[in-house]
Amino acid sequence: MGNLENYFINLFPSKHIGDDGAIIEKNLVVVQDGFFENVHFLRNWLSLDEVAYKAVAVNISDIYSMNGIPKYGLITIAIPKEFSKQELKLLYQGFSRASKDFQFEIIGGDTISNSKLDISITIIGKVRGKPILRSGAKQGDLIAYTGTLGNSKRDLEKLLSGRKIGRNSIFRKPKLNRDFIFKVAPYISSGLDISDGLFSELSHIANSSRVGFHLWKPIPKQIGCSGEEYQFLFTFPKRNRKRIESIGKSLNTKVTIFGEVTNRKRYINPCKPHHF
Amino acid sequence: MGNLENYFINLFPSKHIGDDGAIIEKNLVVVQDGFFENVHFLRNWLSLDEVAYKAVAVNISDIYSMNGIPKYGLITIAIPKEFSKQELKLLYQGFSRASKDFQFEIIGGDTISNSKLDISITIIGKVRGKPILRSGAKQGDLIAYTGTLGNSKRDLEKLLSGRKIGRNSIFRKPKLNRDFIFKVAPYISSGLDISDGLFSELSHIANSSRVGFHLWKPIPKQIGCSGEEYQFLFTFPKRNRKRIESIGKSLNTKVTIFGEVTNRKRYINPCKPHHF
Repeated sequence: MGNLENYFINLFPSKHIGDDGAIIEKNLVVVQDGFFENVHFLRNWLSLDEVAYKAVAVNISDIYSMNGIPKYGLITIAIPKEFSKQELKLLYQGFSRASKDFQFEIIGGDTISNSKLDISITIIGKVRGKPILRSGAKQGDLIAYTGTLGNSKRDLEKLLSGRKIGRNSIFRKPKLNRDFIFKVAPYISSGLDISDGLFSELSHIANSSRVGFHLWKPIPKQIGCSGEEYQFLFTFPKRNRKRIESIGKSLNTKVTIFGEVTNRKRYINPCKPHHF
Repeated sequence: MGNLENYFINLFPSKHIGDDGAIIEKNLVVVQDGFFENVHFLRNWLSLDEVAYKAVAVNISDIYSMNGIPKYGLITIAIPKEFSKQELKLLYQGFSRASKDFQFEIIGGDTISNSKLDISITIIGKVRGKPILRSGAKQGDLIAYTGTLGNSKRDLEKLLSGRKIGRNSIFRKPKLNRDFIFKVAPYISSGLDISDGLFSELSHIANSSRVGFHLWKPIPKQIGCSGEEYQFLFTFPKRNRKRIESIGKSLNTKVTIFGEVTNRKRYINPCKPHHF
């Protein structure tokens, strides 16, 4: 949908919309993302346990990216009428495992008898100190991302062409960068998770911070347009470079510094929307 | 689905689950309910503006029933791919009107390109004083509901048989009892909104309060099994009867006192699940 989607969201005037989550009541961060069959996944791509876990993880990624600790979760789950108790148990296992791994409590939600498996999740977290926003990037800041990008797109392409992906593919189970984000939080000027792809997230920082970018080397689309990576994209003042590199080293988190923030006030995302 | 639905929800251990909403951080109340096409409504039953408004209203009803004031809303909306800008505008109008009428701010959510129109909403509210729970009913308390029950079932049956319903049907636009609930809150022992039907909600009070009921007169299924009424069901100590009746009178809210709480610890809901 792409444009219509943006059209719809932009109808809403809230000052809260624009970051990975919304800050309320001073120190709470709230996120809500859906995970829908035939939109975000096909049923034969993931086990039910993996579907439930990933539906939670993509929301937790938003909480971490805002410098938040997840506390409470609400799960609305629309379940195909023909599901067996065994299948419900698998779903439950995924949610339960996620709630343990990410240390939040499931406090409510809704269960709906539906034609397909659609999940909508809200997570409420506590902000550790200051929230990380998209709006703080300043001219002269450096820009970096964690980990390796491109694998998610490659694996999505495999799935779309009927091939299999590995058990440990990040498409199955996103790898989140909690410790790294929490440690660099005091030293960065803006940040967000890479859910729609590097180029798309750059355009979010550009819009929110009213800046542009000078990328040191051209980045291929295979990397820049790879969505659902859940790596962390961030900007920081040059003076913090050593500190950030040393945090990356100490946590074994690869940090790729790839450009500089400029005053161009514009950035155009060259990718097509990646949902099928 | 009925039983499987309960089976799934009961897998979760949280102490928060069981009331209309969950209380967190001392004075916040959080609710999440879905409003799905072909589950809660058919597209030709309601205008898009009405769909959006009702999706919000059923959540607000839960907030009021917990003695809460809505503050923030998150909307995940799955939109059919073929929707036009005009159709999106109508949806937006419904959400926007609801946000004005119920005085909360839309702070986030998600937009998904889907095969049908499915909405999942989270509302976060502030509790006014003490929350209203399902667990406070005591033996000897009286039990009452607001308004008139049965119209929603009648209108649903009309729709299911291809007939039309009136413009002001509560099936189109629930009538919520905010002022009444807020005024009686200090004088009642338990309460919740009638979303699944009177009998179903009685069983919720019975389970949470570990009580039973003596109904003064038999209540026909046409009334007791009528869901989506969004009237308020509550129990209160006998000594508060006059006060509650006078609040009802002052607000022009019909109050039907229909039975007494007993120590039977059991109540069986005789209705079939009402979703089609």
